[in-house]
Order: sequence, then structure tokens, then C-alpha cells
Amino acid sequence: MDKAVVDRIAQFEGQEVLLQGWLAAKRSSGKIHFLQVRDGTGTIQCVLVKANAVEDEFAAADRCPQESSVEVVGVVRKDARSPIGFEVDASRFRVVSAAEPYPISPKDHGTAFLMEHRHLWLRSRRQHAILRVRATIIRAIRDYFDNNGFLLVDTPILTPAACEGTTTLFELDYFGEKAYLTQSGQLYNEATAAAFGKVYCFGPTFRAEKSKTRRHLMEFWMVEPEMAFADLVENMRVAEEFLAYVVGRVLDERRTELAVLERDIKPLEGVQAPFPRIHYRDAVAQLRTHGSDIPDGDDFGGDDETILTKLYDRPIIVHHYPTAVKAFYMKRDPDDPTHCLSMDVLAPEGYGEVIGGGQREESLEVLRAAIAAHKLPEEAFGWYLDLRRFGSVPHAGFGLGVERTVAWICGLPHIRETIPFPRMLEKITP
Amino acid sequence: MDKAVVDRIAQFEGQEVLLQGWLAAKRSSGKIHFLQVRDGTGTIQCVLVKANAVEDEFAAADRCPQESSVEVVGVVRKDARSPIGFEVDASRFRVVSAAEPYPISPKDHGTAFLMEHRHLWLRSRRQHAILRVRATIIRAIRDYFDNNGFLLVDTPILTPAACEGTTTLFELDYFGEKAYLTQSGQLYNEATAAAFGKVYCFGPTFRAEKSKTRRHLMEFWMVEPEMAFADLVENMRVAEEFLAYVVGRVLDERRTELAVLERDIKPLEGVQAPFPRIHYRDAVAQLRTHGSDIPDGDDFGGDDETILTKLYDRPIIVHHYPTAVKAFYMKRDPDDPTHCLSMDVLAPEGYGEVIGGGQREESLEVLRAAIAAHKLPEEAFGWYLDLRRFGSVPHAGFGLGVERTVAWICGLPHIRETIPFPRMLEKITP
Repeated sequence: MDKAVVDRIAQFEGQEVLLQGWLAAKRSSGKIHFLQVRDGTGTIQCVLVKANAVEDEFAAADRCPQESSVEVVGVVRKDARSPIGFEVDASRFRVVSAAEPYPISPKDHGTAFLMEHRHLWLRSRRQHAILRVRATIIRAIRDYFDNNGFLLVDTPILTPAACEGTTTLFELDYFGEKAYLTQSGQLYNEATAAAFGKVYCFGPTFRAEKSKTRRHLMEFWMVEPEMAFADLVENMRVAEEFLAYVVGRVLDERRTELAVLERDIKPLEGVQAPFPRIHYRDAVAQLRTHGSDIPDGDDFGGDDETILTKLYDRPIIVHHYPTAVKAFYMKRDPDDPTHCLSMDVLAPEGYGEVIGGGQREESLEVLRAAIAAHKLPEEAFGWYLDLRRFGSVPHAGFGLGVERTVAWICGLPHIRETIPFPRMLEKITP
Repeated sequence: MDKAVVDRIAQFEGQEVLLQGWLAAKRSSGKIHFLQVRDGTGTIQCVLVKANAVEDEFAAADRCPQESSVEVVGVVRKDARSPIGFEVDASRFRVVSAAEPYPISPKDHGTAFLMEHRHLWLRSRRQHAILRVRATIIRAIRDYFDNNGFLLVDTPILTPAACEGTTTLFELDYFGEKAYLTQSGQLYNEATAAAFGKVYCFGPTFRAEKSKTRRHLMEFWMVEPEMAFADLVENMRVAEEFLAYVVGRVLDERRTELAVLERDIKPLEGVQAPFPRIHYRDAVAQLRTHGSDIPDGDDFGGDDETILTKLYDRPIIVHHYPTAVKAFYMKRDPDDPTHCLSMDVLAPEGYGEVIGGGQREESLEVLRAAIAAHKLPEEAFGWYLDLRRFGSVPHAGFGLGVERTVAWICGLPHIRETIPFPRMLEKITP
């Protein structure tokens, strides 16, 4: 007898199969048990009729608590009433392990309670949908770069120097030296782009920020491509092509999950390149006509991004942010050094920044001056400056935050459900 | 004019193209410059003939230092003498940025020197070959699991509890609480396997071990699959199928790189399932007949693994290690509780362990007793024990260390070249 899985149940139609999973729910007429069995790939209704069942097994199904692990043997039958199109006419039923009373009930639990039970909450239909979309997003990200001439080159998590100040860094002791958890692989990417042309890194990054918002996690995944011989314009082209590809893959492969999440897919279908490109100055002007009091030269706050993105039906690219609000390595606009060759991609529907990047400064002298102006210790950047000493080239890249992208594509109000075990300000368990 | 890249140069045969890269080497006859241009995807010889060149450009090529960034315009020509089958008849040459004298010369440098210059050493032919094989291994790993019904579910890097003691953990302050860098996603994988059936996590892991060996890094990447409703036998089957697939992909896609590394591919071609399976007791007996003095009940040392793997022409699976040397969550053999349902896959040619795993204990009572016997704080494992309270099932999984696998497949004597920026005992820069 074959072992079947729910997401491939169609290929077992008419056959007797073994299903292994968990009892998600059941109802009973006294003579028939309708057992909802979840095997991790999906949930299927198994119908156990008393007249056809082993007596003890029918009784065991009657007593069986929610979330017990079970095995069912039965014949797969097409059924138009089923949300997945199939049911199982069960002949055998076995409890592998009977569950204690399950703490998560259909009633509304508070978020704190659900987060404490995150290891169990992950079994819910909604969390299944989100984490499947997440897996597809990650797969699509890798496919895009692997198929477009980028080489995956992992950058380190443990880093010696703080590239943008230490206040938001997690610090640890590395055999007597201070070390920090990475906030970005970019500086290392610049070295590997000089070796391999087009590269990307993809791993967890960390920010020890004492903020509790719907958009921040302490630990989050980021993909960062970097391209030698590329400028801001090419960077924007790649960013929009990439993001449209990722959204397209989710629409191709995860319609069912988006429906579970009640996600309106119209706005996602509109994510087509090119995206509107807006100079920072024009974005500020637009913001002010829509009620923002953003001062000249400021970076956008979350509220500004919300106002701005609601004006467009697709992601937008804001470029040429003020030099003063961006990192030291950003290349200044040669025609207007108060603004730099930076860009952010802001997701629509109020979601805001999902991509940040720009063209990097390739001049050794300008970069040394920028390091000094930012009061950073030049000796920590010796290897980074070497990249300008030995074959410097115009280069550009960006970073996309996975969890913000998941939140946007799934239409979630808060980032906490976008990662299996979120790390938040007062939350490091389970 | 098209911009061409070296690894796709064949499609530009007969066309005039722009090449952008770095001057890896050159020689000159006075009237002809032979310029080796590396663009990150490969290296191609560009032939610049004085009679056809712009005078200033010919002179600039003559002066151009190694590792300067350059642009060459020329026509792609088939050439049987070229290692890549093509050359470029150059008409234009431009120095983008002239390099300072390059510190890495063809003479032998010590490892310490090369490691200090890792950001530049990455440009070498050998490092290119290794890191391309690495990228292919990682891609193959993901493809195997994605194509075999496993869902990628990321596990956290920042963890609250130490699952196997704190002596080899990196500790940090998490807003007033102690936190540790993960050594394994396994416990979390057990939770997600109970939600999704078959899962894998893949990310960096950390070990603060004061050891300097050719097989240890402080930061290394590990992929860990976990399967609900699976036992030791199924675990071994998946492990060998998986590993044979990964090696096969490298043989399919990276022959050129293996040749650069002078890797004998015969042993790799022999990596076919099934692998020999050896009970720990039999392995000990074999070791002793080959000169090891391993005492009863000990875990294998590196030397033991070397001796043992040299007796076989393919990877071997050693199973049923002594319970006492394995972690608390390992399920004991019901017929012989002094040994457990664990397994390691040892790579041939003396490389040793690349995979470790086993079947996990699914009984709540046995697991609680094991936690107590290991003197671990039960309260830290509350959520983990919940997995046995709510639908416990037989389950198994394993972890594969990426860097050890790269070292073996590439035939490297030391693990330090298997990752772009290795983190070793006295090494956290660049």
C-alpha cells in the first residue's frame, strides 16, 4: 500500500493508501466520523463509517483528541464538495499518540498567548499559508539571481567592525576580541563583486533596535545583490525586474495560500516593471501636498512611506536621497553632492520600504574623506579601501528584507507572523 | 554594441563586444599585447596589436598594472589554442582605474598572508573554482529538498537556551537576557516537522570551540532536514540519496572547476547509493584491526574517521553510536538502550563526518528522564516537550555541514578555503 500525501492526493484516486498526520478536527453523526486529517502538506476529510470499521478503531476515533497523531487507511475518492476535491473512505484508523487537551482553540486568543505557543500555532491554516508563501518567495529570490548570472557568495555573520556605528549592533566576545552580528553583507559583497562580477549574499541579519513596531524584527533575512560595472540606473532596473519576478512566482504558485489569507491579489497583479521613479525632492513635495510635515533633508518615516505609497498602484522607486541621511559609502551625485545615488523601493498599499540600495563610492580619496567625516576608524576599513586601490569600478547593489516582503505580499498587518520564530524586543522564546 | 561575459562568450562569436573586467596578467612582444582579462565569470585573452590600436591606448596597456580595472572592445574569435576556445581581437583599450602594486604575486605566500588579504585572494583561479563549487553544492542541496516535498522553514539564530551545554556557545546580551548563537536548528525543526511533515532549515551555525584543526570553523553553514513519521532506516535512505545527488550535480556542472583544483574525480563518481552501513560495534572492531586504540563506548576522533573511511571506496554510514556520547534527544535502540538510533555519514578519502543525525525520542516520559539525566533545566524545554504532548510521532533528521562537504568534494586539505570569509580561532578579519 502506498503512503500518500495530501498535496498529491489526486494521483492516488481510486487507490487504497496510508495517510499519516494529525487530527485537526472532527465531527460525528454517531454512525459516521468525519475526520479532518492534516499531514503537513494539506488537510483532507477521512470518512469512517461504523458499519465498515473495526469496532475498537471506531471507538478510538470517537475519543481521539484534537492534534493527536493518527494513521488512516482508506480509498481516495473524488468529491466535488471537498475544498481540495478529494476525500478518503477510511477502513482503518489508528491513534499513534493521543494528545493532551490542546491549548489553542478556535476562539480568539491574544497575540501574546499565540506567540508563547508559536511552536503549536505554526500548525494553523493561516500560519501554513504564510510560511508556504515565505518559502516560495525565498526560492524565487534565489532562482532570479542564480538564473541571471549572479554567484551566491556568503558573507560572514560575525564581523569585527561596525560599519554604521555600534548602537544598534549585538555585541559578543570572540575569544577576547569584540565582535558584532552583521547588519548587512554589503561591504563584503563589494569585495566579492570585484572578484566575481555579479554576486549575492542571503542570510540572517541583526539589528538591536529598541523599537516595537509592526515593521521591525531583531533578526531578519536579507538578500543583497552587488554588481561590478553597474550604476544607479542599472541598479533600479534590476531591482524592479527582480521584485516583479518574485511577486509573479507567488501568484503562479501560491494562489491557494493567498486565498486562505484573504489577500486581494489585484494589487499584486499590478506589480509590473517599470516602477514609477521619483526623485527624493519630488517625493517630499508630494508628501507635503498630502499632509506630511517632513522637513527638508530628512529621511522618510514610516508614516511618510505610507502616505507616498498609497498614491501609486504599484511599487515606486525613490532615488537621490540626501547624502546626509545615508551611509558613508553611498556615491554622491556628481551634479549635486548634497544628494546621493541611492534608491529605495517602496511597496504599495502603505507597506513602504522593502528594498534599499544605491551606487557605491568608487574613489579612494572621496571614500577616505567620507569615513573621516562620519568619524569612523579608517584602520577598520583597510581591506575595504583596498577595493578602491586594486581595480576600482563603478558598482551598485541593494538589499531586500524578506520579512517585509512576506508581510506585503501576504497582506499582513504585522511582521511577527512572517518568520517561524520571530525575535522581537521582549521576545526570544520559544 | 553588446556587453559580453566570458562564460557566455561562445554566443558572441564573430561579433564586436565590450568586455569589462580586471587585468589578471599580460605579456607583450613590443608590437602585440596579450592581455588576460578576468571579468568574474572567467578569463579571456585579448590581443591588442599596435598597428591596429589607438596609440595612447596601446601605450596605456603597456603600462597598465595587474588588477587594474579595464574595458576592452574587440571581436570574439574562435581559437583552438585558448583554454576556453575563444580570444578577442581588441581594437580599443581603456583603463577604468589603475591599480597600485598588487600584493599577491605568483610566488608562494604563506597562508597567514593570504588570509589577511582574503578580500583580494578571492580573485585567484583556485578560489574562484572552490567558491563556484560551493555555490553549486548549496543550490543542489536546496533543489534536492525543494523537489522532494520538504518545506524550507528557517529556524532562529538567536536562541534562549543551550541545548547541549554552554561551553561551546557564543553568548550575547539580548536586552538584558542571555542569548546564544545557534548550534543547530534541530529542536525547532522538530516543531515545524510536526506542523509541515517534512521540513529543512539552512543557515549559519556557530561553535565557540577553542580548537585549531583543519576541520573546524567557528561559523559554518548547515542544512538540516527533519521528517515526521520517519525512522532511522528512512533517515539513512534519504541521507545517502541526498548526498549522492549533491555530488552528482557538482560532477555535472563543475568539471572545469574540479580540474582547476586537480581533483581526482574517480572517487566522486563512486558516490552512489546505497552506502555501506556499519553498526558502531563493527566499526570499532574494524578500527582496532587497523591500529586504532579506541576504547569501548567512545565517540570517534578525527583519526579514527580517517582510518575507517580509507577502508571504503564511497561514503559509509555508521549507525547505533553509544547513547552516552550522543545528545539527550536521541532515541535509544529499544533492544539495546546503551546504543541509540543515531547515524553519521563519513566521507571517503579520510574526510570523515559530513552528516550527523538520527531518530529522535518521541516519548514524553523518556525524554524528560533524559533531560534530567543530562542535568539540563526542564523549564527551558517546555515547548520542546509540548511536541510530545500534542501528537508525538516517530521522527528523524540529520544535519550536513556545508564547508566540510566543500572541502571533501574539492579535495582540499583544510576547511579554511571553503567559505569566503572564514572565522577561525584567531581570525575574524577581514
